[in-house]
Amino acid sequence: MIDERIEFSEISPSEFFYRNRDLAGFTSPSRALYSAIRELFENSLDACELYSILPDVFVRVTPLDPYTTDSDPKAYSIKVQDNGPGIPPKHVPKAFGQVFFGSKFQLKQSRGMFGMGGTMAILYGQITTNKPVSITTSVDGVQAFNFDILIDIQENAPIILKKSSHPAEGSTGTTVRLSLNGDYQRASQKVREYFKQAAMVTPYANITFVDPYGRLIIYDRGSKSMPPPSKETLPHPYGMDVEALRRLIRQSKEDAMVKFISKNFHRVGDRVAQKFLDYVGFDQNRNPKSLSNDDITKFIRALHEYDNFLQPDASCLSPLGKKNLIVGIEKELGPEFVAVATRPPSAYSGFPFIVEVGLAYGGKITPPGTKLFRFANRIPLLYDEANDVSSKVINEVDWKRYKVPQNAPIAIITHICSTRIPYKTVGKEYLADRPELEKELKNALRETLRKLKLYLSKKNSIAMVKKKLNIYSKYLPLIAKFSTELSGEKRLPRYDRLLNRKQIQGDLEDNTEI
Amino acid sequence: MIDERIEFSEISPSEFFYRNRDLAGFTSPSRALYSAIRELFENSLDACELYSILPDVFVRVTPLDPYTTDSDPKAYSIKVQDNGPGIPPKHVPKAFGQVFFGSKFQLKQSRGMFGMGGTMAILYGQITTNKPVSITTSVDGVQAFNFDILIDIQENAPIILKKSSHPAEGSTGTTVRLSLNGDYQRASQKVREYFKQAAMVTPYANITFVDPYGRLIIYDRGSKSMPPPSKETLPHPYGMDVEALRRLIRQSKEDAMVKFISKNFHRVGDRVAQKFLDYVGFDQNRNPKSLSNDDITKFIRALHEYDNFLQPDASCLSPLGKKNLIVGIEKELGPEFVAVATRPPSAYSGFPFIVEVGLAYGGKITPPGTKLFRFANRIPLLYDEANDVSSKVINEVDWKRYKVPQNAPIAIITHICSTRIPYKTVGKEYLADRPELEKELKNALRETLRKLKLYLSKKNSIAMVKKKLNIYSKYLPLIAKFSTELSGEKRLPRYDRLLNRKQIQGDLEDNTEI
Repeated sequence: MIDERIEFSEISPSEFFYRNRDLAGFTSPSRALYSAIRELFENSLDACELYSILPDVFVRVTPLDPYTTDSDPKAYSIKVQDNGPGIPPKHVPKAFGQVFFGSKFQLKQSRGMFGMGGTMAILYGQITTNKPVSITTSVDGVQAFNFDILIDIQENAPIILKKSSHPAEGSTGTTVRLSLNGDYQRASQKVREYFKQAAMVTPYANITFVDPYGRLIIYDRGSKSMPPPSKETLPHPYGMDVEALRRLIRQSKEDAMVKFISKNFHRVGDRVAQKFLDYVGFDQNRNPKSLSNDDITKFIRALHEYDNFLQPDASCLSPLGKKNLIVGIEKELGPEFVAVATRPPSAYSGFPFIVEVGLAYGGKITPPGTKLFRFANRIPLLYDEANDVSSKVINEVDWKRYKVPQNAPIAIITHICSTRIPYKTVGKEYLADRPELEKELKNALRETLRKLKLYLSKKNSIAMVKKKLNIYSKYLPLIAKFSTELSGEKRLPRYDRLLNRKQIQGDLEDNTEI
Repeated sequence: MIDERIEFSEISPSEFFYRNRDLAGFTSPSRALYSAIRELFENSLDACELYSILPDVFVRVTPLDPYTTDSDPKAYSIKVQDNGPGIPPKHVPKAFGQVFFGSKFQLKQSRGMFGMGGTMAILYGQITTNKPVSITTSVDGVQAFNFDILIDIQENAPIILKKSSHPAEGSTGTTVRLSLNGDYQRASQKVREYFKQAAMVTPYANITFVDPYGRLIIYDRGSKSMPPPSKETLPHPYGMDVEALRRLIRQSKEDAMVKFISKNFHRVGDRVAQKFLDYVGFDQNRNPKSLSNDDITKFIRALHEYDNFLQPDASCLSPLGKKNLIVGIEKELGPEFVAVATRPPSAYSGFPFIVEVGLAYGGKITPPGTKLFRFANRIPLLYDEANDVSSKVINEVDWKRYKVPQNAPIAIITHICSTRIPYKTVGKEYLADRPELEKELKNALRETLRKLKLYLSKKNSIAMVKKKLNIYSKYLPLIAKFSTELSGEKRLPRYDRLLNRKQIQGDLEDNTEI
């Protein structure tokens, strides 16, 4: 009886995301096209940066049938080509044809977080156009391998349709070609905005984009200095849970607690490990494998309570830096005034993060009102702004306190980098409002607002002085002439030095506040 | 060289959600507590409704250590008990201890969508408190089974720690007890709001909630009429993709296309199937298993282009209905005026949906401004309102057109039911702005706004009439007296009939517009 009405069944991870593609940003033909482009493009940047290769990424979107006169949505072909390190051929089928298989499952800063963006793009392409993905890759510049792959969704496994190899002509890198049902007409504005913002935070990349109308958009690199590749870090005690601890114990070869702790935890040396063991009441020579279930519970609770662990080290993170941020903002937004703030490293649940905020005012920033640009680990985030922690912070700031006129033309740029960005969606649209993040964003924003306030008040008082000077400059010559005549002198006094405009002008010119 | 820097690895679905719990609504101790309660509670309601059992659900949250004086966050114990059909013991371990195993993978309306809410709550409890989940269930009321289960996260498999059975004392149902690290202090407002709104849309359920301070909150059922259990439907041609078609062909025993189509597609009979086959140019007796790859591509494209399929049938859906909606709104919000609108069934990507909107004005609705209550398949949605499609629609409506005064005290209630709610997050916080959904919401809202406009203008003109009457009632007696004296009569004329207030009052009293 029961079993007739409640049917239990198991599904594969591919199947889960196939059924629920809204979760991964594949909501509609326009969103799907946008998501596919960005996921493949971001994979290319991540690969290049890991090997400190100056990225050279080529993206082309064309109608699958070049002679079609169909209106959108229709089948498009996407090609993304990079000069990265390439992918070892033995990993290619699973890396592209299996959900939850990838290279992004380590504790370090990278654009990819879930290791599934590329696979989702391929899956979506496959179910909407019935075509395999084609991957060409070379790791040595000598030989290149080509794979045509479909995904067996029910089994969550790649099906290799074709495999071949050919000479690589000297260059390493990966090229992905896939087809999907897309709507470029609706997506075009976001896609172009995406590349514009991506160029803003990746000034060391050459980005070439060819749109379906054959229009070429090129962002040449403006700098050859790349951030150092991000490093993997050990887990911090504050981020530890029962599961993670059990795994460390299972893997560890240390037979004394003190060594076990200092070898496996981020920024914990022997001395801190000893002190902590005293605090929790465990012998420092005890074998970690001897911990009972209750010991583990006790240990974890103590890890979270203990005050004397060092904060996570942010040397594994690579923020943009004030200079890059200012250059990017000035180049792309052309404002009258820029202020930036970089907060010292902080952490949530044991994950280090750094917040950078830029505030730009006036100049080419139009129309009036506040525009927000969000970045996370150097990815532009363009969708679902309203729920993002940055929006929350901006809405809660007391603007009047900083004497910012209503509807002032302002752009706010937020960049968060972390070993674990707290995305709320697999599609990486927006960030959860973790209190620690909120606090740092608020502080950074306030810092920039204080600088804006100073600038505006300086600008105001200079305007006042100018006004006065204007009046003086009208009457001073007359007074001078009058007094000269009265005193019987021939030469006028040199009153022009009293009207020194240059100095005032100079005061306003240096309007970048770091 | 390469393999040293890029490490590829495979992770299990449990592992994926363990690493990325923000995705499923387990962001912080307060959100985790909230999410765990609602997921278990919603599972109970779904189970009862499937068997048309009037739900009787008991939820209790207590500190795990009853004598603790620790402040939040701390370990809490959650118990959720229902009088549902119970779960067959053979399914219990996987249903609770394996991600992507469940009973919610069919095409029908239910609260659960992803089949993982309960498992996520258990997983979170396990990693934060190191305790197993305990499940007691009986399907026959004779024998009850008890399981203590942990999840092997790396393997995505249940570990049964203890299994026992005992007499069931006559009642079927399931009881789940788990512990997790929570923050009730921060969660309490949302938890109580959740139950209040849940009671509003489930008036046929008895809900008992005991909070950690021992306070009892009871929602008694106000009605014994339950919506009929939702039914599974066939997939609609418009929602079909390559993958789904291949599966149907593999499973089907029909050897003629015409039968294959009419047996497997929603609302397609032999006649429509024949017409469609003519349109696509396939022989109606052709064996579906003979379709080539290109045939399948062609077939799918034609399915999406063909105009003559019937819209999905919404008889598989169970909306609240106008009456229930009005009762719920009046009971919970006590407004001066209520209007409701139910749109005819519509569909997106082949999934049928129905939109219901209620608009309440004045009365106990305070403070001024518009408050939004969102429901989807009878679940209250309390988080991430700003990105929801309902918020978008409300923001885009031209309020002035309906002569609604600024800051008028208004509540808007939206309910969407569908075989597939387009959630943007696994945590079921908000809905994607599918254009079809947006359109129906907009139309429903406009319908209620027109009724409000009518009501307000009636109220206004009645206020005017009253004002006039007030003036008349002051002067009419004097005029009457004066004229009587002038005419030499003794008796005053019966002017009071001219001041008939009752009728005006009556005009305003019937202020529920269906």
